Amino acid sequence: MFIAEIMGVGDELLYGETVDTNTAELARSLQPYNLNIPRTLRVADDLAALSSELRKAWSSARLIVLSGGLGPTPDDITREAIAAALGEALELDQAMLNQIRAIFAARGWNMPESNRKQAMKIPSATWILNPRGTAPGWWVHQETPAPRDLIALPGPPAEWRPMWAELLPKLDLPCQAYAQKTFKTLGIGESRIVEVLGGLFQREGPATVGTYAKAHGVEVTVRGQPEAVQRLAEEIAPKLQEYLWGEDADTLPGVVLRGLEARGATLATIESLSGGVLGALVTEVAGASRAYLGGMVAYSVGAKQRFGVPDEALSQGTVSEACARAMAEAARKALGATYALATTGVAGPDELEGQPVGTVFVALAGPQKTQVRPYRFPPYGREFIRTRAAYAALALLQGELR
Amino acid sequence: MFIAEIMGVGDELLYGETVDTNTAELARSLQPYNLNIPRTLRVADDLAALSSELRKAWSSARLIVLSGGLGPTPDDITREAIAAALGEALELDQAMLNQIRAIFAARGWNMPESNRKQAMKIPSATWILNPRGTAPGWWVHQETPAPRDLIALPGPPAEWRPMWAELLPKLDLPCQAYAQKTFKTLGIGESRIVEVLGGLFQREGPATVGTYAKAHGVEVTVRGQPEAVQRLAEEIAPKLQEYLWGEDADTLPGVVLRGLEARGATLATIESLSGGVLGALVTEVAGASRAYLGGMVAYSVGAKQRFGVPDEALSQGTVSEACARAMAEAARKALGATYALATTGVAGPDELEGQPVGTVFVALAGPQKTQVRPYRFPPYGREFIRTRAAYAALALLQGELR
Repeated sequence: MFIAEIMGVGDELLYGETVDTNTAELARSLQPYNLNIPRTLRVADDLAALSSELRKAWSSARLIVLSGGLGPTPDDITREAIAAALGEALELDQAMLNQIRAIFAARGWNMPESNRKQAMKIPSATWILNPRGTAPGWWVHQETPAPRDLIALPGPPAEWRPMWAELLPKLDLPCQAYAQKTFKTLGIGESRIVEVLGGLFQREGPATVGTYAKAHGVEVTVRGQPEAVQRLAEEIAPKLQEYLWGEDADTLPGVVLRGLEARGATLATIESLSGGVLGALVTEVAGASRAYLGGMVAYSVGAKQRFGVPDEALSQGTVSEACARAMAEAARKALGATYALATTGVAGPDELEGQPVGTVFVALAGPQKTQVRPYRFPPYGREFIRTRAAYAALALLQGELR
Repeated sequence: MFIAEIMGVGDELLYGETVDTNTAELARSLQPYNLNIPRTLRVADDLAALSSELRKAWSSARLIVLSGGLGPTPDDITREAIAAALGEALELDQAMLNQIRAIFAARGWNMPESNRKQAMKIPSATWILNPRGTAPGWWVHQETPAPRDLIALPGPPAEWRPMWAELLPKLDLPCQAYAQKTFKTLGIGESRIVEVLGGLFQREGPATVGTYAKAHGVEVTVRGQPEAVQRLAEEIAPKLQEYLWGEDADTLPGVVLRGLEARGATLATIESLSGGVLGALVTEVAGASRAYLGGMVAYSVGAKQRFGVPDEALSQGTVSEACARAMAEAARKALGATYALATTGVAGPDELEGQPVGTVFVALAGPQKTQVRPYRFPPYGREFIRTRAAYAALALLQGELR
């Protein structure tokens, strides 16, 4: 089997000042091809380390894809490392230099001298033009003794994505029939899914199954040879039916918004502990405005009062079933929505009103009734609890709509 | 120099269904030690691939840290891979099995049979107890011919963090004096920073400098030997003064909230295109409620009206300076806040009111005046534009407060 090596270059990836999502996205883009990806690497801004990795990879891999390290600053060493690994010298390409100067000129700037290095390449590389930045990529293709490609892309996804989308079909990589099906569940844990699936939880063979715990519940993904994936997915679907809210690219807010639209219904939100996380999740969906009217961040007691939460409910504490219920009803009324979702609780780090960190109430007010669900999330930090609370609210509405 | 190898195990990391932040966090935790980390790896759920990586690492590295692959499902193969690489056999530890059963029993459940494998280990490993889950870790220490440690941790950060924090000091790793200083800027690009710093932008020597472009601006980090870092940082600081909003662990919302608190001032938000992202950023800060009253997600025109934005402003279009101004003033009044921030614009994918994707207006209403700033962000997706808009709003307030 042919091997693909994917490397993200940069200390900031290694140490997480920038979270490396490039290597994973590149790996996903290669799933339709008959390539084995045993690992991905994040490599330091270290000429010796990167050229050593490249030398090893160039002797064994069918494909090497690098992202990062093509910038203008002295810590950008991808060009130098490839040159060292392949034993070639860097040469200035005057035409490319003029092009880079032109990009700066179009913005009314002089090109800093440091950008000059972006016009350097080795003779065996061809340029990959970058429509969104000053760093062009490199493509090195070798035909004998065996076909082999090395591609260097810039780090910013907005820059490399269009470059890669255009280049990938030209690489003539070995193909395979490949398919993938993901089931998205809520309210069931990973161990329990393994039990429910029993012999269908296959790890070997033409189609394999994996489970992934997410903030929006556990995902079950079947991948491999298309007919085998379809067969296995058809057997798995009914077993998960009870917990299923979506498939593949579905998002929980997207599914909820589609459900609302289909009913001609509208949504409002009112958030205490989640402070905008729920609204942000809903409005991340393009076209959310067709069903989502808007919401309130009722963070302080004063804001809750101003948004119409009665003092009677507030007197029972803001971390209470009564408060969640009153918030949802107030938001529904204030915005004239069919449904309103509310969140309140304790995100931490300290307990609140004598309630421990992780205590959450979510409420759904609708035309017939108001429902409240209590949760006790593990105290794994504010972001963890706030995100879980927002998804719990969406899940409550999804249950109502389905 | 001693080498540390850090590996995240799991197909979900390789393909990004779960974003791997563990390897970066582990790498950061090792910065105070005299270890070279030339790369980090994400390795597939593939017994042959992982045991091959481990065999190579065990012959050359001072320290190997793995996270992931200790779960109960058949795709969890870290234990088997270590056993294969070190040539040892897995044995059941009856005492550990009883402990895992007890965790389930305490939750009122029977232990699924699949969890039995979590009580298996090789003879040379000692257990690392997991206070937050059923997967204990492994610690393999070798004294001769050279000290060497291999540590296997579970994948969830909430589980491995306390385990690692307790274990790390016991590992007797080679120490070095290490320090790091980060300057956080806004309104200046990376190339320009390199020019401004000139000879201070050092890539070699006892202290080195790196730049990292983030949603909240460019970060400049100095790292290395403590005295050298301090000296270099002291020279760098005045050069960046004009653009500086924070240092080290500072976040822009955190700095803004501290500034408000220091003045006894309060904040309200009202968001159109950012739909809650701004509120969520502000309320991610623990103790935000000391200055942040709350806000509105004025997503629809109807919601804007209900929140007090006058029809006169709305008649000029919701993507306009007039609308941003009126929104901020309405929010300030509605919540009785000292300051109010507003966002409106076009997140895409389609243009709106004839304005292109990326058009954004942010406004700040204060006791004396209301300021509006127009932006044209590159059309790199909804999340990109919404996040930039939220940070632009915070930057406007930070400029006012400093």
